[in-house]
Amino acid sequence: MMEPRIEILSTGAELLDGRTADTNAAEIAAALGGIGLRVASTHAGGDDVDEIHALLRDILRRSSLCVCTGGLGPTRDDLTREAVARVCGRPLKLDEASLRNIRDRFAKYNRPMPESNNRQAMFPGGAEILPTRVGTAPGFAVDSDESLIVCMPGVPREMRHMLRESVLPLLRKRFPTSRCIRGKVLRLFGISESSLADTLGEIMNPGRDPSVGTAASHGVISIIIRSHGKDAERVERALAETETRIRALVGKHVFGEGEMNLEEAVAQLLEEHDMTIATAESCTGGMVGALLTNVPGISRFYPGGVVCYGDEAKMELLGVPRETLQSKGAVSDEVARALAEGVRKRFRSDIGVGVTGIAGPAGGTRDKPVGLVYIAVADGQGTESREFRFSGERRAIRLRAALTALNMTRARGSDAEEERSDGKGLTPRFK
Amino acid sequence: MMEPRIEILSTGAELLDGRTADTNAAEIAAALGGIGLRVASTHAGGDDVDEIHALLRDILRRSSLCVCTGGLGPTRDDLTREAVARVCGRPLKLDEASLRNIRDRFAKYNRPMPESNNRQAMFPGGAEILPTRVGTAPGFAVDSDESLIVCMPGVPREMRHMLRESVLPLLRKRFPTSRCIRGKVLRLFGISESSLADTLGEIMNPGRDPSVGTAASHGVISIIIRSHGKDAERVERALAETETRIRALVGKHVFGEGEMNLEEAVAQLLEEHDMTIATAESCTGGMVGALLTNVPGISRFYPGGVVCYGDEAKMELLGVPRETLQSKGAVSDEVARALAEGVRKRFRSDIGVGVTGIAGPAGGTRDKPVGLVYIAVADGQGTESREFRFSGERRAIRLRAALTALNMTRARGSDAEEERSDGKGLTPRFK
Repeated sequence: MMEPRIEILSTGAELLDGRTADTNAAEIAAALGGIGLRVASTHAGGDDVDEIHALLRDILRRSSLCVCTGGLGPTRDDLTREAVARVCGRPLKLDEASLRNIRDRFAKYNRPMPESNNRQAMFPGGAEILPTRVGTAPGFAVDSDESLIVCMPGVPREMRHMLRESVLPLLRKRFPTSRCIRGKVLRLFGISESSLADTLGEIMNPGRDPSVGTAASHGVISIIIRSHGKDAERVERALAETETRIRALVGKHVFGEGEMNLEEAVAQLLEEHDMTIATAESCTGGMVGALLTNVPGISRFYPGGVVCYGDEAKMELLGVPRETLQSKGAVSDEVARALAEGVRKRFRSDIGVGVTGIAGPAGGTRDKPVGLVYIAVADGQGTESREFRFSGERRAIRLRAALTALNMTRARGSDAEEERSDGKGLTPRFK
Repeated sequence: MMEPRIEILSTGAELLDGRTADTNAAEIAAALGGIGLRVASTHAGGDDVDEIHALLRDILRRSSLCVCTGGLGPTRDDLTREAVARVCGRPLKLDEASLRNIRDRFAKYNRPMPESNNRQAMFPGGAEILPTRVGTAPGFAVDSDESLIVCMPGVPREMRHMLRESVLPLLRKRFPTSRCIRGKVLRLFGISESSLADTLGEIMNPGRDPSVGTAASHGVISIIIRSHGKDAERVERALAETETRIRALVGKHVFGEGEMNLEEAVAQLLEEHDMTIATAESCTGGMVGALLTNVPGISRFYPGGVVCYGDEAKMELLGVPRETLQSKGAVSDEVARALAEGVRKRFRSDIGVGVTGIAGPAGGTRDKPVGLVYIAVADGQGTESREFRFSGERRAIRLRAALTALNMTRARGSDAEEERSDGKGLTPRFK
């Protein structure tokens, strides 16, 4: 069977004036992928029956399935059912059973049913009605020539229920696929998306199977490997081969798989080594601590830290010498080291992390520009400090600094040899 | 002049397999609305040059402007420039100036420029190049018969800059409009979206002008008021009238306007009162500090804080008595008060904030369930402590706790009388 071409159409004025991002489309695409169906494109149109009709008509010209959300509510700007009735030439009819269900629902909560809710029991002739347990808007599925149109409510919670309980089972039956889709995600830090592309070269070529794509978020890169085919075993093998090739090229930057975060990678290492960590944060103002404490159960490994935004906190709580602050400045290699060592001592932890930098927008000079950050990691073996120059705005610089602090800790604790700008090797393990 | 028909096209495989919702489209639509331009529909297509080409071709048949994002990166799956070149019949040409800029950018950060970045200096012939100060991907604008195509990078931060600095000025010139659209956003905390809808009643009716909508993010509610018409003065007046009615109903929850955050509202109050604040965070692990230090220039008002995740830090650094920890438990009203008072003393600040709670998923008991959080604010007038029960997952509970700590500080410092569950009034001002 040929793979069906699938598109998603979301309707609602709120999608076109900037009030709401279309999260339904992403959620539906993910769910369809789970049953082996790929989405070719998605669309959003306003509460205008002609507009929705025109979009639908174009979609049905190209595709064998259109999944719609939105516009099934009781108000006058809910026009999807009219547009669908028109595009497939099946006038709306009242469904008595649906009307009773809507009435019962209102009765259950002791509320009078507004007249406008009658509209929610109207469907294009011949439609299969998709009941709802959440909300009042039933959905429906209807054929239009060679194509199928499925309509669900736009409220995410209502859509989600209907998708899972009615739509996915329907589509599984209608578009059976022996196709098997498998994917794997590797997570990296410390390499740019473009160097990664250069290093991977033809592995990222469009059209290659398995396909390899990348996505970046605040310096964390995901490499997404996907493959599909009829033979599950062959698909898995192809995936594993590609993963092996990628790891051979950039494995030292890989800190995890799937949805793993840097803070989880650090927590995992702390657990493996049975070590504790404490944080001394100036420019990041608590972000490293906030990231670490995202991880459930981190309290066994993270006694805490100091947000030493002012110089007094650096001196009084962490023992940074006043002379160092005065002669080298708060943003310096020396102060980063003193922070890491000071907080390690103060919290009697195995590892201490110190971060100091200039997040901007003000406070930069020619010698010490905005984006200059020093990060130090101290442990039983000594203290390692590095200088970074991050670009971007205040938030980006700070987040990048916090993530880099976690990554330095991880790299120090793992066997991975990390590239260093100064060419020196890294201490391979804690202690 | 007839109103131009406008569509948005986003490209990227991550938009079609459920990894990412298309937030760029919403952001662009909002910005275009601000200059009187309405978006008719939005579309997303994958990293496939034929697919992007087909979508573009259909859009240009219907519309006079297509705003594209994504697919301008350096990798082989970045194909927007090829698709645009094909649809408007203008082959790609290398732009030497852009190539120099990209080279300079890499040189500035002392990094070699990967070969693949060359592609980012290729543009359809005759295109106007839109420079970038953020990221490496320049955008471009190019004519195709009667229509204009504008292409921006897909990374939201890069897109945002280019939209504001290059694209909006270009579109203002190209599509002048006499239609005036005005909007205003009020920001609230401490009220749910559904209570807000109940309180505002018919003010939120669909079809009303000015229109009133709400959006919620982690407890921060935005009320969006919009109006449009030919007469700017009348539009402004209608907007102001609606704002006055809303403020009369829920004004005590309003902490700011536009895009103001709670941390900025707190910083503004600290500046007005010339006061400093210090933070003692257990379950939030540094989030309150991280939020406060988002605000540029906060160092004058925020000397720092302690992340007291473990009991030792609570006792040793903040002077919480061991007996209190043992008899009342770390998550208690008494410990929250001791943290706020202890950190205020330790940092010699005017205000101290203490947060302690159970973020879960483990660690809850029948008496002290997951989501129980105590927050205390101490100042020269005394200490106020409140108990909260937040729902949701670990991250949601922690963020809600951090934001609530900021809101308690703000409410204490502002003249607003806040609702309290215990019915007691609030100290109206600091000190």
